[in-house]
Amino acid sequence: MDHIAPLSVDDDELALLTDLYQLTMTQAYWKEAMTAPATFSLFFRRLPPERRFMLACGQQHAAERVSRLRFTDRALRRLAEVDHLEPAFLDWLADWRFEGDIWTLPEGTPVFANEPLLEVDAPIAQAQLLESLIMNLVQLETVLASKAVRMVMAARGRPVVDFGLRRMHGVDAAVRGVRAYRAAGLAGTSNVLGGLRHGLALNGTMAHSYVLAHDSEREAFRAFARHYPGTTLLVDTHDTLEGVKTVITLMREEAGLEIGAIRLDSGDLGELARGARALLDAAGHTDVKIVASSGLDEHAIEALIADGAPIDAFGVGTRMGVAADAPVIDLSYKLVEYAGQPKVKRSPGKINLPGRKQVYRRHDAHGGFSGDVIAGRDEHVDEATSLLHPCVVRGETVPEAMASADAARERVTRDLERLPAALRVLAPGDGDYPVTLSEHLARRAGEAP
Amino acid sequence: MDHIAPLSVDDDELALLTDLYQLTMTQAYWKEAMTAPATFSLFFRRLPPERRFMLACGQQHAAERVSRLRFTDRALRRLAEVDHLEPAFLDWLADWRFEGDIWTLPEGTPVFANEPLLEVDAPIAQAQLLESLIMNLVQLETVLASKAVRMVMAARGRPVVDFGLRRMHGVDAAVRGVRAYRAAGLAGTSNVLGGLRHGLALNGTMAHSYVLAHDSEREAFRAFARHYPGTTLLVDTHDTLEGVKTVITLMREEAGLEIGAIRLDSGDLGELARGARALLDAAGHTDVKIVASSGLDEHAIEALIADGAPIDAFGVGTRMGVAADAPVIDLSYKLVEYAGQPKVKRSPGKINLPGRKQVYRRHDAHGGFSGDVIAGRDEHVDEATSLLHPCVVRGETVPEAMASADAARERVTRDLERLPAALRVLAPGDGDYPVTLSEHLARRAGEAP
Repeated sequence: MDHIAPLSVDDDELALLTDLYQLTMTQAYWKEAMTAPATFSLFFRRLPPERRFMLACGQQHAAERVSRLRFTDRALRRLAEVDHLEPAFLDWLADWRFEGDIWTLPEGTPVFANEPLLEVDAPIAQAQLLESLIMNLVQLETVLASKAVRMVMAARGRPVVDFGLRRMHGVDAAVRGVRAYRAAGLAGTSNVLGGLRHGLALNGTMAHSYVLAHDSEREAFRAFARHYPGTTLLVDTHDTLEGVKTVITLMREEAGLEIGAIRLDSGDLGELARGARALLDAAGHTDVKIVASSGLDEHAIEALIADGAPIDAFGVGTRMGVAADAPVIDLSYKLVEYAGQPKVKRSPGKINLPGRKQVYRRHDAHGGFSGDVIAGRDEHVDEATSLLHPCVVRGETVPEAMASADAARERVTRDLERLPAALRVLAPGDGDYPVTLSEHLARRAGEAP
Repeated sequence: MDHIAPLSVDDDELALLTDLYQLTMTQAYWKEAMTAPATFSLFFRRLPPERRFMLACGQQHAAERVSRLRFTDRALRRLAEVDHLEPAFLDWLADWRFEGDIWTLPEGTPVFANEPLLEVDAPIAQAQLLESLIMNLVQLETVLASKAVRMVMAARGRPVVDFGLRRMHGVDAAVRGVRAYRAAGLAGTSNVLGGLRHGLALNGTMAHSYVLAHDSEREAFRAFARHYPGTTLLVDTHDTLEGVKTVITLMREEAGLEIGAIRLDSGDLGELARGARALLDAAGHTDVKIVASSGLDEHAIEALIADGAPIDAFGVGTRMGVAADAPVIDLSYKLVEYAGQPKVKRSPGKINLPGRKQVYRRHDAHGGFSGDVIAGRDEHVDEATSLLHPCVVRGETVPEAMASADAARERVTRDLERLPAALRVLAPGDGDYPVTLSEHLARRAGEAP
């Protein structure tokens, strides 16, 4: 039975995507009739070493799923297998609904350490249950969007395309990753389902196997270019520059054969791009573009561009797909208020901010971001924009608060320009973005039990 | 529409989980009437730096999915949105079936560089289409099982439990990861859906929020232990050793209160475990166990045990869940034979082995593994066991060739003991496992076009 288990997690199983202790604690709250309102806050404690900011992504998508979460009969039958969950509690779960509020940053917002990406206000037996689900959902999109935007920054306007499906961590990462990539500003994806589902252009050409399955590289190129006018030919199966010469010969021999680009997928990409460009230009094919792939990441892209490599577009797979330098952020989902009392776990060396919060972002005279203030939710901060907004109220989504995919992408593009220039670099550097606590919150953080 | 996209990939969408170029090339093969048989081989070129072996996992699961793969009407309607795919080709896809053979290593087999985990023999327009799907599926389970078994080795018989759901890359990674963890020998998981679906024991206790939501730690402990006799109490919300003292006081005050274990989740785990053990033992509670979690990985577990820390079980999340030291292996799915001719892409510095292959494993007098020979599929190697077996034949699965979950776990346990002792260490070291090529294959590798 095991090896034919489904790959998918259907909506009617989603309530089971939780750690057992959430159910155990929720049953305890139920037994103890603990129904007071709680607030849980989702944040990370520190930026990964190479990073200057993260893009908050997935928090509104997670909130929307929460608003629809139900324990279906199918899910409850599965839970009946868990020894310590009682039938009466499972009956109670059958009627479980999320009836609280969820405040979120808009999709694609640059976010810094200790700033809530999301806060849940709900009876504790509702809010507690969501921890693992929300963290898993938000972590993936945030990690992937935050990595992908670095490719976009490095490429300085040249298109970057996702080639990561084969190396990403499973089906959900690969498909939902495309949504994060769209927000981050990638130009396309090779992932068919991901691109179709999340509205990102599909890209793709040929593999070495196609060349090898033909009698010669030339035959392979000729056949492919006849099938697909304007296509991209992969020229490195045998010898890259010989491959480029074969392309040029073909175009000379067969008038009307349209070849849009060549792709380099191994070797010294800068050197080969220069060689290929020179050959193409000398033959009058200044319009044939050069696409590069092969183990690229933001640093490799930056170095190629700094070195003047005539590369027109980048295909990026593995290192972006697992966010190789920072495959996780240390997201926490912490109880910060219960029954009207601010709560905080004291941890040596860690900042834990009690109470419901708001993030205020300040702007300079040119619209650039000049610093953030983390404050209590009900505080007012002058000359600053509040970033957290309710996207679920009393269990119902607020459609106008939900960022569309286009809005998320536009926000990322716009906000990148508003970040201080010192943050728009790939390496760790001087000058952190100023994030301060309001006086009230700082006092509370010193006092809370 | 975008933000309510499903999380799941249903069986009837699975054929779309491919890179666009697979479809583009397959349409080209179809146009060119290229129907000759091909063999593609799935392997990795090198072990990650810290690793001495990997556990091949997911290849039989992937093969089984392939045997059932179809382009449903729903999938074909989506593909009609892709400009260069022709209606007649989509009609052809409607009848597409995998009709070839798939040879695989059994689930859980220790595997080394350049050894095929899987080979597909099929008409090229069938075998080509599977590349991205097979790679994505196999990569996840292999990466996660290979990381998890290191925790099991480090823990030297003490139970290791998966706490990774919240930090793993999406829903599929978290749920399917549990299957890999079961094979690797973990004792349990906190992931409810993963554990129920893949038959691994569920574990979990309480979070700091439960303690904070009560008037005192003592009230929280008392309530929880009354609800769940024999439970594990999380003692580090305020001060770990004070928390242990509170547990002891409670047990003294309330006869019959059963507390099975305490959990340490922050601080110097070795020091705190010793302190907690001393307090518990002095109070006569030698039977109360100590569970540790908090940023653990195999090296931390090994160091704690080497240091004599009295820890009875380990909860491991983030670093295991993303396989932090090696989140990808450089899996390749390469054409190695077409129309009866061995094929190989020449790459400077890379080994590419042409033709259909077999892996033979040799044993010493005590049953231990003494070395592997990679050979042509039809070669015979004396005194060695062949590891690749057909698990799909002419498109149909061979049920008796498919390893059950229990068989995979048993194989891992047994094979770990058969690996040379030098490989059963966590650090990179001297003495690679000997993997050689048969004379015939070595000659072929030097000759193939």
